[in-house]
Amino acid sequence: MADHDAPPGPTPAWLDRGTSEIFPHNPGSTDGTDNLVARIHSCDRPLRIKLGIDPTGADIHLGHSIPIRKLRAFQDAGHTAVLIIGDFTARIGDPTGKSDVRQQLTPEQVQHNAETYLQQIRPILDFDTPGRLEVRYNSQWLSQLDLGKTLELLTTMTVGQMLAKEGFAERYGQGSPIYLHEFLYPLMQGYDSVAVAADVELGGTDQKFNIAVGRDLQRYFGQTPQFGLLLPILLGTDGVQKMSKSLGNYVGLGEDPLTMYSKLEKTPDGVLESYVELLTALDWDQLPENPRDRQKALALDVVAQYHGSPAAQGAQQAALTLVQGAAGQAEAVPEFSMAAIAFPVKSFYLVSAAGLCGTSSEARRQLQNGAVKLDGQRLSDPNQTFATPADLVGQVLQVGKKKFVRLVE
Amino acid sequence: MADHDAPPGPTPAWLDRGTSEIFPHNPGSTDGTDNLVARIHSCDRPLRIKLGIDPTGADIHLGHSIPIRKLRAFQDAGHTAVLIIGDFTARIGDPTGKSDVRQQLTPEQVQHNAETYLQQIRPILDFDTPGRLEVRYNSQWLSQLDLGKTLELLTTMTVGQMLAKEGFAERYGQGSPIYLHEFLYPLMQGYDSVAVAADVELGGTDQKFNIAVGRDLQRYFGQTPQFGLLLPILLGTDGVQKMSKSLGNYVGLGEDPLTMYSKLEKTPDGVLESYVELLTALDWDQLPENPRDRQKALALDVVAQYHGSPAAQGAQQAALTLVQGAAGQAEAVPEFSMAAIAFPVKSFYLVSAAGLCGTSSEARRQLQNGAVKLDGQRLSDPNQTFATPADLVGQVLQVGKKKFVRLVE
Repeated sequence: MADHDAPPGPTPAWLDRGTSEIFPHNPGSTDGTDNLVARIHSCDRPLRIKLGIDPTGADIHLGHSIPIRKLRAFQDAGHTAVLIIGDFTARIGDPTGKSDVRQQLTPEQVQHNAETYLQQIRPILDFDTPGRLEVRYNSQWLSQLDLGKTLELLTTMTVGQMLAKEGFAERYGQGSPIYLHEFLYPLMQGYDSVAVAADVELGGTDQKFNIAVGRDLQRYFGQTPQFGLLLPILLGTDGVQKMSKSLGNYVGLGEDPLTMYSKLEKTPDGVLESYVELLTALDWDQLPENPRDRQKALALDVVAQYHGSPAAQGAQQAALTLVQGAAGQAEAVPEFSMAAIAFPVKSFYLVSAAGLCGTSSEARRQLQNGAVKLDGQRLSDPNQTFATPADLVGQVLQVGKKKFVRLVE
Repeated sequence: MADHDAPPGPTPAWLDRGTSEIFPHNPGSTDGTDNLVARIHSCDRPLRIKLGIDPTGADIHLGHSIPIRKLRAFQDAGHTAVLIIGDFTARIGDPTGKSDVRQQLTPEQVQHNAETYLQQIRPILDFDTPGRLEVRYNSQWLSQLDLGKTLELLTTMTVGQMLAKEGFAERYGQGSPIYLHEFLYPLMQGYDSVAVAADVELGGTDQKFNIAVGRDLQRYFGQTPQFGLLLPILLGTDGVQKMSKSLGNYVGLGEDPLTMYSKLEKTPDGVLESYVELLTALDWDQLPENPRDRQKALALDVVAQYHGSPAAQGAQQAALTLVQGAAGQAEAVPEFSMAAIAFPVKSFYLVSAAGLCGTSSEARRQLQNGAVKLDGQRLSDPNQTFATPADLVGQVLQVGKKKFVRLVE
């Protein structure tokens, strides 16, 4: 129920958790234009929470999951997540051809990447409740912008404002070339906010400038400007640098339970609390005091989010077996309990459920590629069916050379 | 006949006259990419000579005529003048609404201004010889530019290059805001060169940057880059500041013969030679030595270009009468000889031919507005016909309070 006159009160825990900054923020204000809590209370409809997704890569990691988890919190509070797939820029690429980051992709590649992305975040976002999720492709409106409209967008900012942006300022100071089209990207991102009439835009702390551009453009086009909600950039499993696939300090959302678990149970002390805050709903004060147990609790919770509780428990058990059994090859094989699997089961599902492949489709591929063995015998038919656990118990299921489990009841 | 191997030789007089700079210019080269004379000699087709026209105003003056006269020289040498009416930007105006210079015009206003412009330059450009003139409206291609193509144009330049442009550099240094869309204008002008496949672009010396942008874009799109041919900015009749309507130091192409003549016969010594060079085909060394006579020769020649020789002679005579007869009112009335007029004649034509209105349509308007008198009697019908000179001889024809002639045989 909307209550237009009440003071907004404190920021709810779901909104506050892990949030670096909300802007604008006038704490005592009851005005929904400068106080997000007041906006939440006073608005008679679900708010529209925008998050932009770059579909140039298919692999995403826990760093990417942070704004998705915040989106989920908004969904659970009754609001609408608006995911914007940045297919327009991905299709254009970097027209200079100088940047590896902005490779030009075909529409098919963009579509594939977007679908893979959505599949990977499916465990943490509400895809099912009606009205809670919109997925939009920004080529829908950006490809319609003619030169007159583009000129109009450009009039809203000055060269000085743009050069004050972090990144540009340093490059300009160093005499590194800044190509003119780079000035258009923040405006395009800002125009996305206009196109979807965003009430809130989520982003990393490095997105403040771009989100503010969106506010200016919305004001220019007669909309109430969005709020910015900034979230921290997650450090990697080295505890030092930003999580990144290229640095190898990442945990991929598509990784199998054992890999995920093994990485997370070694989370360095310096980042452990931020991982718990940003990646789980666990209460830090309720966790065991022993740092080793906290690492395990973190790892178990995160793996459960993506693979379910049984697989997480299995991974924990397997990790334990690996560590304890380091002396002998046989004992080093982790066990996977088939208790949670419904029989009869097809081979692709078994491989996936056992955490040896991130997705069912990967499992099918690996089977078809001949990379899967059961007790040393190649399994190549993804649809081969096993009637009961008894057909499998005690056997070692293996994908490639490094991933294997012993199947147990 | 194209001769690809001959050395280009000296710059022909018609090309050199009044020209400030041709770029690129490698004097000894026989390569048509860096020597315009070589290009002229080696090209098997007429060159395409571009000049952009701003249709935001309808009144043009002798300063505007300088590149038109150069265009005519190219036409006379067998090349094609490509006049580009900048209707796209005129229709958009300055989207910030901050500039008086870029008022937004309706398509009808743009069309009217363009037609008025063309009408005023008709006396000095060859409109009739087939293949010598193309008139293009740049909205034809600029309105088709989508965001992807615009991004592509923008990639061809850096912020640093743009800020090095005269005008931008000073404003940026002074901390005056430069709006981002201002960076697009040079690229749009440059893209015009691509759209018409220009071989040469004419412009004032202040246009070097924009013409060079056109070269870059042509190269980017696989064309041979155009040459730039820069012409001086004409000083006004005060001999000090740039000729400009707002400064009142101008001679309008649409002005009546007597007004034009009277302004030009007072051309200050300091600019007289440049006026002769830029506005006539007269040979300075062949002119009388007396500065007063040189002024008259300039005035007579320029008026004749726009109004024909008889009107110019009439204006000279009238000016003389005005000066000599300053003592008495009756003698101060200049005479207009009707010798060159074909009878019967309609009143609007008489008023125009007598140099009292710049154009026939203005004459019609003045008649309809009641501003015209014949021997003190109002003439209001533009189509009133006079059968013979005898009907008019000795009478005073007057428009408003300040313009009048005595009609003579």
